[in-house]
Amino acid sequence: MIEFRPTVEQYGWTFGGTEPIRRVRPGTVMQLWTDDAFAGRLRRADDRPSQLLDIRYTNPQTGPFYVEGAEVGDTLALHFVSITPSRDWGVSTTLPLFGALTGTTRTATLQDPLPELTWVYEINQEKEIVTFAARDSEHRIDLPLEPMLGTVGLAPALKEVRSTAVPDYFGGNMDTPEMRTGSTCYLGVNVEGALFSVGDGHARQGEGETCGVAVETAMDVTLIVELIKGGAPAWPRIEDDENLMVVGSGRPLDDAWRVAQVDMVGWLQELLSMGKMDAYQLLTQISKSPIANMVDPNFSAVVKVAKDVLPGIQAYGGMHAHLRQLAGALH
Amino acid sequence: MIEFRPTVEQYGWTFGGTEPIRRVRPGTVMQLWTDDAFAGRLRRADDRPSQLLDIRYTNPQTGPFYVEGAEVGDTLALHFVSITPSRDWGVSTTLPLFGALTGTTRTATLQDPLPELTWVYEINQEKEIVTFAARDSEHRIDLPLEPMLGTVGLAPALKEVRSTAVPDYFGGNMDTPEMRTGSTCYLGVNVEGALFSVGDGHARQGEGETCGVAVETAMDVTLIVELIKGGAPAWPRIEDDENLMVVGSGRPLDDAWRVAQVDMVGWLQELLSMGKMDAYQLLTQISKSPIANMVDPNFSAVVKVAKDVLPGIQAYGGMHAHLRQLAGALH
Amino acid sequence: MIEFRPTVEQYGWTFGGTEPIRRVRPGTVMQLWTDDAFAGRLRRADDRPSQLLDIRYTNPQTGPFYVEGAEVGDTLALHFVSITPSRDWGVSTTLPLFGALTGTTRTATLQDPLPELTWVYEINQEKEIVTFAARDSEHRIDLPLEPMLGTVGLAPALKEVRSTAVPDYFGGNMDTPEMRTGSTCYLGVNVEGALFSVGDGHARQGEGETCGVAVETAMDVTLIVELIKGGAPAWPRIEDDENLMVVGSGRPLDDAWRVAQVDMVGWLQELLSMGKMDAYQLLTQISKSPIANMVDPNFSAVVKVAKDVLPGIQAYGGMHAHLRQLAGALH
Amino acid sequence: MIEFRPTVEQYGWTFGGTEPIRRVRPGTVMQLWTDDAFAGRLRRADDRPSQLLDIRYTNPQTGPFYVEGAEVGDTLALHFVSITPSRDWGVSTTLPLFGALTGTTRTATLQDPLPELTWVYEINQEKEIVTFAARDSEHRIDLPLEPMLGTVGLAPALKEVRSTAVPDYFGGNMDTPEMRTGSTCYLGVNVEGALFSVGDGHARQGEGETCGVAVETAMDVTLIVELIKGGAPAWPRIEDDENLMVVGSGRPLDDAWRVAQVDMVGWLQELLSMGKMDAYQLLTQISKSPIANMVDPNFSAVVKVAKDVLPGIQAYGGMHAHLRQLAGALH
Repeated sequence: MIEFRPTVEQYGWTFGGTEPIRRVRPGTVMQLWTDDAFAGRLRRADDRPSQLLDIRYTNPQTGPFYVEGAEVGDTLALHFVSITPSRDWGVSTTLPLFGALTGTTRTATLQDPLPELTWVYEINQEKEIVTFAARDSEHRIDLPLEPMLGTVGLAPALKEVRSTAVPDYFGGNMDTPEMRTGSTCYLGVNVEGALFSVGDGHARQGEGETCGVAVETAMDVTLIVELIKGGAPAWPRIEDDENLMVVGSGRPLDDAWRVAQVDMVGWLQELLSMGKMDAYQLLTQISKSPIANMVDPNFSAVVKVAKDVLPGIQAYGGMHAHLRQLAGALH
Repeated sequence: MIEFRPTVEQYGWTFGGTEPIRRVRPGTVMQLWTDDAFAGRLRRADDRPSQLLDIRYTNPQTGPFYVEGAEVGDTLALHFVSITPSRDWGVSTTLPLFGALTGTTRTATLQDPLPELTWVYEINQEKEIVTFAARDSEHRIDLPLEPMLGTVGLAPALKEVRSTAVPDYFGGNMDTPEMRTGSTCYLGVNVEGALFSVGDGHARQGEGETCGVAVETAMDVTLIVELIKGGAPAWPRIEDDENLMVVGSGRPLDDAWRVAQVDMVGWLQELLSMGKMDAYQLLTQISKSPIANMVDPNFSAVVKVAKDVLPGIQAYGGMHAHLRQLAGALH
Repeated sequence: MIEFRPTVEQYGWTFGGTEPIRRVRPGTVMQLWTDDAFAGRLRRADDRPSQLLDIRYTNPQTGPFYVEGAEVGDTLALHFVSITPSRDWGVSTTLPLFGALTGTTRTATLQDPLPELTWVYEINQEKEIVTFAARDSEHRIDLPLEPMLGTVGLAPALKEVRSTAVPDYFGGNMDTPEMRTGSTCYLGVNVEGALFSVGDGHARQGEGETCGVAVETAMDVTLIVELIKGGAPAWPRIEDDENLMVVGSGRPLDDAWRVAQVDMVGWLQELLSMGKMDAYQLLTQISKSPIANMVDPNFSAVVKVAKDVLPGIQAYGGMHAHLRQLAGALH
Repeated sequence: MIEFRPTVEQYGWTFGGTEPIRRVRPGTVMQLWTDDAFAGRLRRADDRPSQLLDIRYTNPQTGPFYVEGAEVGDTLALHFVSITPSRDWGVSTTLPLFGALTGTTRTATLQDPLPELTWVYEINQEKEIVTFAARDSEHRIDLPLEPMLGTVGLAPALKEVRSTAVPDYFGGNMDTPEMRTGSTCYLGVNVEGALFSVGDGHARQGEGETCGVAVETAMDVTLIVELIKGGAPAWPRIEDDENLMVVGSGRPLDDAWRVAQVDMVGWLQELLSMGKMDAYQLLTQISKSPIANMVDPNFSAVVKVAKDVLPGIQAYGGMHAHLRQLAGALH
């Protein structure tokens, strides 16, 4: 068991490019704490992001961790035993020229930006509720607490170093609600030691993360690290008790979706010993396609296949079931 | 009650551009039959689409129906009491240069097309099962029967006439599994009489309709037509017992998604008497975003909001509940 | 020789869907007049489009003309002998939620629209100058007069009828400056008689037509109609004395560009009796790629190849040279 | 005067992430040599890229150079005095799943890749000719020699390190033919010392670089480095004797084009002391929009404005004219 809570100086702002903060053996249980995407700088409804935030220091990650024995081409498995808010509040905001329903620095327009506003949410863990309070009216709306991690990533290949704002083939800022308690994430290792980090806790998030900011909060995360030799997937995969998933990222959203679908066709071929065209046909009839985010430097799309229609399949030698069992034994 | 089963000569191949085949009064229950998207021409696993299909005669619609009293700017409500396969088989296929994981006539590449193949599915209505049989292996996989209509559309504005392959603001070939038994579809009226038609039954379909062809089959459809004066939505909306939805269409998928989201922001503002920025923020945390199709001349994306988190809201004066009640009384 | 100046009642607002206004024989010289895209309704710098325009009646076309002998699969050639402003002024404007540097009805955002403004340009035919006068400062800037037609189109296939705002495989509102005096446009015939029309004169236009509106003006157009049996190109082609061009349309711009490039690869294969991969390689080194428009329902991109690097090639049996000769004889 | 020819060990494979190889003072003339994008590994028509290339070692850059005094927010000016092939041959190739007219790792499809082929071009500097030799036929076609640099870039911001395959706001692999002898490139400085590098010489290239590979060759490059305090542009700008240009990069091409256009609107506002809407209108009528590349991790688009229609304007205090004069004095 490794417990780790970073100091502000230890926060990670990139994937790749920094020294590992700890070394871990495959099979290790880790108890981590992650700050929110604003490093706790936004706390009140009248806090203005443009005054309080520095774009160089957003989305702090806890890590990177060096996984012993991990080599290029291996598959890292991270199983999320629990993801729990460590605060009783979360925060969201609109940021000028950021978000899906506004011109941005990348989809540039000449219009005035939308107003910069902050919303503070109450988080009630006992009732499993997150409360939205409108700014311009009296509405208070209770939403289900559904904690998740927006960001899970490894060091990239090609000696690249990427901002923690970016989702791509190495994982990163995918912002999918599927990264929740009980999920196992599989990532292809690009550098020796894998160098994974996690962060960007959301008390909840809609699919697409429309305005670009979920209910951001600090999280206590318990996870188990495992290593599968070889088998590196081209894109991040997630398995939970019901589904197999692939997360593609790119622009436009079409391309994020396509890479995830093509990877899933290959995964079905392999799991079912089935021909490519048959797998393509089968996926056509069974795919679920929730969008993850439409706001980051790459957009992310999930393809999801229910395991119960594919009886007998076993991904990565039953790794997910194995990790679920280990997780169960922890309680 | 109107019963109508078109002859082949009566099939509709366009939205707009043809005379109505019947006139109906708001409140009418209709029992319709719709042929499959290939007009029944593909039936066996060795049928080749390129030999049997004529692109001018695909996706036949039942209609158009003239709704008495419908004027430009009104809202047509179509409630689907039941959608039931009228055959014990369905068919899917790959078509050259059509589908999401191939170059197409619009996303043009120089590569050779994928092979042209046909799959025939058994439909077992009693067991509510659709059976996929692989071509290159012995797999037979039972999938849940989940009948739906791919195409529900009105005559377009601006005197345009569109192929029934097209989804757009007038509905059309949206190919979303949300168009199922129990759903109410709201469409803005563009011409006097609305001129709606329906078709393209799918025994089931994955989100995205990856290869471009679902489990195509003929359907018996019972629906109730209603008319709401005024209030025409910019994009098709769907309501069922659990959700409010908007279906956006366009290219790239980003734009299909954006128009749906912007329309939903406006709908939430209206239903909740809430400010625009608050509605934008709320949607960010509650939106579900399943993709509908990534294969048609426009792609389609659904935004979905659970009604139970928005207590007390009533869309279109409770029209959906009213139609559900009428539908219940029919049995 | 046919001379034709439509009355307002004769203006064409669609491609397809209307009866031909004249029949012409191949080889005919036509002298036509086309109104501007606003049907002359905007004339002064304080004219507001939203008050004066009706979206159903913009971009009026002169036509459609039925070409005798034209059958599906044939190629219509239109040679522009001269395109000359018939007014000493032109007009441009910004329209709310229209244009490339603003959210639109298709690329939807929640921001406020840009202001709606009108600019009136002086056209001096003798000096071949168009004068821009700024609204917010004293700038007056002389630009070269370079008259062109934004819109040249045929009736579509599949019984579709499209608004004259749309560019697509049938031509239409391509908005490329390459459609100028001395150009020959080749279009594939989709219906008996071809049913071509022309309009949308621009005194000049930048590539991309950034704000969505060029220097719109009425035009006197002299053209020669010719018919080539068979050989219908998939996308509109243009030939002038220096270049062969293809105009692709679609969304995103990537797709507009791709279809044009793929069509040009095929054209080079055919003209040079060259293999596909060689033509792809050659095009890579010689392609010019000016964007046409980024604002219409489809965007348009031009691929352009200089004829002097491809000595000895002759497109359509020397049709362009033949028409140039005929045109020369008219003066 | 600095002369520098890197050893293979000194080649740069990233923007950012490495130590500068030399320090230079503003005003320095540099004579550099750059290897081709394949580091010289492809030389014969039967060389197969997949056997000879390592994706980690493609597009080698000469640099990075530390510019004394350059601080974040400054503008680096690089004037290309001459760009001359240092070999009498160049090479192009098709790479599997790379290029604009094929499915790629980002626009993923299930089709078989195009064949992997290599073309060797003769370069005749005296005649200023590059000769294409077809593979499948006897064609030999002489094309104008038009040498250029595909890649000119600085270290990125946010501590990122990017592969030299990438074009973005920091320049990089823009692949525009406008980066030629006589051009001045302006780039915003993101890190102390700017850390610029250059490479990827092309004997010539079509706009769009369709198959993804130009006529790649080693180059002798003479350039002058200058530094402008402050004024960092958001996107790379190029000035030559006739034009002002901005190069935008992104995906889809729409976004690459939009950022360039928005930056040009701002540049015109500043140069002409003109209002935003007037600059938008003016650009609409004068913009040239050649595509640069449709193949790299980001696509690139150029917006180009002729200086002669904007009399009296002076960008960066006449820097380009100053550097031209210096360059003239070198001969």
